Amino acid sequence: MRIGVLTAGGDCPGLNAVIRSVVHRAVHDRGDEVIGFEDGFTGLLDGRHRPLDTNDVAGILARGGTILGSARLERDRLREACDNSEELIDRLGLDALIPIGGEGTLTAARMLADAGLPVVGVPKTIDNDISATDRTFGFDTAVGVATEAMDRLKTTAESHQRVMVVEVMGRHAGWIALEAGMAAGAHGICIPERPFEVDDLVKMVEERFAREKKFALICVAEGAHPAQGSMPYEKGVIDQYGHERFVGIGNRLASELEHRLGKEAKPVILGHVQRGGTPTAYDRVLATRFGWHAVEAAHRGDFGQMTALRGTEIVMTPLANAVSELKRVPQDRMDEAESVY
Amino acid sequence: MRIGVLTAGGDCPGLNAVIRSVVHRAVHDRGDEVIGFEDGFTGLLDGRHRPLDTNDVAGILARGGTILGSARLERDRLREACDNSEELIDRLGLDALIPIGGEGTLTAARMLADAGLPVVGVPKTIDNDISATDRTFGFDTAVGVATEAMDRLKTTAESHQRVMVVEVMGRHAGWIALEAGMAAGAHGICIPERPFEVDDLVKMVEERFAREKKFALICVAEGAHPAQGSMPYEKGVIDQYGHERFVGIGNRLASELEHRLGKEAKPVILGHVQRGGTPTAYDRVLATRFGWHAVEAAHRGDFGQMTALRGTEIVMTPLANAVSELKRVPQDRMDEAESVY
Amino acid sequence: MRIGVLTAGGDCPGLNAVIRSVVHRAVHDRGDEVIGFEDGFTGLLDGRHRPLDTNDVAGILARGGTILGSARLERDRLREACDNSEELIDRLGLDALIPIGGEGTLTAARMLADAGLPVVGVPKTIDNDISATDRTFGFDTAVGVATEAMDRLKTTAESHQRVMVVEVMGRHAGWIALEAGMAAGAHGICIPERPFEVDDLVKMVEERFAREKKFALICVAEGAHPAQGSMPYEKGVIDQYGHERFVGIGNRLASELEHRLGKEAKPVILGHVQRGGTPTAYDRVLATRFGWHAVEAAHRGDFGQMTALRGTEIVMTPLANAVSELKRVPQDRMDEAESVY
Amino acid sequence: MRIGVLTAGGDCPGLNAVIRSVVHRAVHDRGDEVIGFEDGFTGLLDGRHRPLDTNDVAGILARGGTILGSARLERDRLREACDNSEELIDRLGLDALIPIGGEGTLTAARMLADAGLPVVGVPKTIDNDISATDRTFGFDTAVGVATEAMDRLKTTAESHQRVMVVEVMGRHAGWIALEAGMAAGAHGICIPERPFEVDDLVKMVEERFAREKKFALICVAEGAHPAQGSMPYEKGVIDQYGHERFVGIGNRLASELEHRLGKEAKPVILGHVQRGGTPTAYDRVLATRFGWHAVEAAHRGDFGQMTALRGTEIVMTPLANAVSELKRVPQDRMDEAESVY
Repeated sequence: MRIGVLTAGGDCPGLNAVIRSVVHRAVHDRGDEVIGFEDGFTGLLDGRHRPLDTNDVAGILARGGTILGSARLERDRLREACDNSEELIDRLGLDALIPIGGEGTLTAARMLADAGLPVVGVPKTIDNDISATDRTFGFDTAVGVATEAMDRLKTTAESHQRVMVVEVMGRHAGWIALEAGMAAGAHGICIPERPFEVDDLVKMVEERFAREKKFALICVAEGAHPAQGSMPYEKGVIDQYGHERFVGIGNRLASELEHRLGKEAKPVILGHVQRGGTPTAYDRVLATRFGWHAVEAAHRGDFGQMTALRGTEIVMTPLANAVSELKRVPQDRMDEAESVY
Repeated sequence: MRIGVLTAGGDCPGLNAVIRSVVHRAVHDRGDEVIGFEDGFTGLLDGRHRPLDTNDVAGILARGGTILGSARLERDRLREACDNSEELIDRLGLDALIPIGGEGTLTAARMLADAGLPVVGVPKTIDNDISATDRTFGFDTAVGVATEAMDRLKTTAESHQRVMVVEVMGRHAGWIALEAGMAAGAHGICIPERPFEVDDLVKMVEERFAREKKFALICVAEGAHPAQGSMPYEKGVIDQYGHERFVGIGNRLASELEHRLGKEAKPVILGHVQRGGTPTAYDRVLATRFGWHAVEAAHRGDFGQMTALRGTEIVMTPLANAVSELKRVPQDRMDEAESVY
Repeated sequence: MRIGVLTAGGDCPGLNAVIRSVVHRAVHDRGDEVIGFEDGFTGLLDGRHRPLDTNDVAGILARGGTILGSARLERDRLREACDNSEELIDRLGLDALIPIGGEGTLTAARMLADAGLPVVGVPKTIDNDISATDRTFGFDTAVGVATEAMDRLKTTAESHQRVMVVEVMGRHAGWIALEAGMAAGAHGICIPERPFEVDDLVKMVEERFAREKKFALICVAEGAHPAQGSMPYEKGVIDQYGHERFVGIGNRLASELEHRLGKEAKPVILGHVQRGGTPTAYDRVLATRFGWHAVEAAHRGDFGQMTALRGTEIVMTPLANAVSELKRVPQDRMDEAESVY
Repeated sequence: MRIGVLTAGGDCPGLNAVIRSVVHRAVHDRGDEVIGFEDGFTGLLDGRHRPLDTNDVAGILARGGTILGSARLERDRLREACDNSEELIDRLGLDALIPIGGEGTLTAARMLADAGLPVVGVPKTIDNDISATDRTFGFDTAVGVATEAMDRLKTTAESHQRVMVVEVMGRHAGWIALEAGMAAGAHGICIPERPFEVDDLVKMVEERFAREKKFALICVAEGAHPAQGSMPYEKGVIDQYGHERFVGIGNRLASELEHRLGKEAKPVILGHVQRGGTPTAYDRVLATRFGWHAVEAAHRGDFGQMTALRGTEIVMTPLANAVSELKRVPQDRMDEAESVY
């Protein structure tokens, strides 16, 4: 059969591993033809694609980024294309389309599926916030990068009796903050799911200093926010070109704590380092399995679905479930993370 | 309540994270008393133990090894002790005992539980071969170490048109070989669950060289063995002191391949590097959760059970299930791993 | 003899390796007594110190931070103490004092030496900007951390056709930016030694995009600044507590480039991650050698000097030279770094 | 001008960085033509080469191995070619030849230079045993890999009260064992330069156990050997195909120690992991500088020389010096390394 693959949305370690796996399974084992669309759905709409065989994916398993490139979703163009879907289907001439991406991509994938395209989705997000799959690839790498950074920062904090506030990714869900914070033994973890009380953090730090543990590490998700009234809000900064440069919660919280504690509190914003580079072994395995099973699903005619991890198994689940709601950090996971002293 | 904790069996990244988590949850949150037995069950039988509070576990989260030490199980002494269990129970005066270990340890844990001791087990093995839990801590670290090593070896293999045979841990189950092999893109994976045909490996290598991919990486579990007649057996070597030095499958296979292929085939035996040192973030989180839930189980009086990962949840499962049978690599996982070209 | 040791100034990977080495060489090999002053010169002035023997330094070789703590230099108190140096010398009762630190510390060390104290300095800075030594420990670790981060960022930049602006440490000298930039293959490197022309960076990026290399990585030292008129200056931002939060050159340059190029330009500020955590092997070796030779120098009565690396040798050099002038990046090193396309 | 480049001898992290640097400097900055010979001197003699421009070296800076391949030196063919060098010179039509390699390669390079070819050598060895340069690229990576492995092994040794014997590379010189041993805090270091007394190691281990430090780490270079009579020699093992499988010093020493101490002593043979994969930042910088200066030397007509590191400078030195004698570990470096308790 003729299978199209594309990567959309933000960078995520493991994208190349999925592409490679799709090509290996489809082209070599199944005798399929695989074409890769460039720059996500843009390449799909513009008809920019190239054939992919095993040589094209040699050596990319451990490489970050995506050899197909990615671009922001042009939702309107896509909707338009779906409106005369027959033309689209004819033009593409695909027996299966495997879009790899996050919530936006999977929503688009569902639109295409509803419009009659033979779509098999592969979920991707470093944030691990997609429902219907236990984990997504890229998340383990992001957590690993953030943990290693906090391992380093802890020694500085301890030597200089400092508070370190580390901002990690996670706009809508706090999974990276939760697991990296647990792994690094952070003394405070702030996530979007639960507004935080600055008073609690102040109390925690003061208790630690009183107990001669004269440092503290606080891990805050970029999307975390203080409880109403717990901290005066602040606007972003307008730079010399009138772009608002958003002052993130990491900087705001550090400055707030420094003020209240009268102790040094340094912010560190990890940023894009978390989403690039070589995937961990865990992510390479998960990504490879997703790609392999996506091809199998295509051959079974299992469309309108996406691959998902359930326990140790890869299963198929309707795209509808995937995008119905964000997977948020439940309270009991936070309870486990907060037994740190 | 008064909780005893001990670590037994081989080294495994994450042991200290469990100990720390037990102490944090029990001593600080629950107001319990925790004592640590030294050198596993030996310390239990000899009454060698020390109190553990939060200061004793400061800074050990990311450290390999175990602060309590470990020692081989003296099964007879333990059985004896179990035979007059009342004396043992009185002597220990514990409300709960949390042994952390692998199959042997959990079997012993079950003996103690059957003898009436309030036991909550925590499974530990880098081999990931314990039934009734999706994964065990230590495994992810071992896979990561093996994968990083193979990433390095691949470049040498490629530059020198060589076959690299990498022996990883896994005496009875091939999980490390499977996942590290997948993560590193190994062209051949040999596991104990399935005797391998040397002919298949020879064919694979020759096909690669024919396709101008003039190198190959083969990942073999220490417990893997060739199919009957596929490779002449060989005895270990007797050294100058009469100890048999076992010549492992990695060395044997490399020598066999070099002979048959007429090409350089180099063995690399990763050995103990896989089981020591800093745990990955994944293993720290899993170990921390296991410790936390073991304390909760103790407070619920949930004895004769062990902690287990099911999907994303930590559950309790009878020790009986845990040790009933080894968790082996199923054929479908091998199928996923073998689409590599 | 009786040797005092202290660590002052900012955190730097390798401090513990020096302390350990001093103790091993002095206490065990030489039968000396070693005492460690807490929190740098503050502990010296307050008489806060503790004896150090080989057990006290067990397991710290690979650990970041400093077991002795560090604190900002109170120059006035120190000068005062130097003014009645006899009292100070009597009070300390030391045959040798080994202060480990950067420019400020070594200047203070020189004051003490001039006041008659038996001082042997050990240079420390992640910035590598101390004259009279080829390299300082901590620098290699900082460069390694920055390089690994940029390796990761490059893949994201490439996948998203982005410009990445990475700000590394280096207030007065650009060594980290130079070597990490070279190691990561940065397409632009900005250092304090040479004001940069934004136009040159814009031209470079446009040429790359024209050549279908649709991404760029720019490494900028925190102390770098644009050439006069090359970029409108900007003040720091005053936060809600009236503290000026300095908006660094990384953010400013990214915003400037985004404006001029009409392309995404993302800043990443690595910050303190560069100065904490496990030292590289290179830094552990250099730090260990420095400690060993400092003890030897003390036994030779070689005071008012500091250890230094010259080629492959550790030599002693007058503290005067060390602090006379900052070691800056020469133009020919920049020439080597700028052949990147 | 027309410049040829080739890589010969064993794999070494940084080879690609040199090739890239030569191409960037020569092709882009100097407008030269660069051709790469395949598989070392074999490609030179067989006339197998391809043009190299900046696109051909994109993304290889951090990649291990060599894009040009490497092969064993056929010394006789080369000598023959040198005997009628005019024919060779005409055939190659090169203005400069840049061979990158170790002792054997540089000796061959010297032959070619003496035969009248315009040769500029670049030294390469992970063993760091080439005279006339302070360090060679690849060495820092090898030391880093060995150190990280020993960091991991130490925790296992400690938890299990074990002796670990780690065999690292270094057939004729002990630089890797020296620096990795120092960096990991090995309690014993054995190098080829100095036959070791097993009795000393036994004594060291027993003293440590007596002092309740119940583990030991010994780092031994593959080329190290026991002092006469200090340990019975042993032959390699003949496998079923009549190939002698050499039983290395690591295995022999571990078995000897286990016998004498009556304690577990485990050997770990790191092998090829040390010479493959991503180079450290240090090695990337050094390799890049070597390549850059080799091109400059070619343009100066500075032939019969090789690049070398002296202190912080890259200088040119006659090939004659480079290969005159091996750079061995001097006694004073060993003294520094042996203050470990």
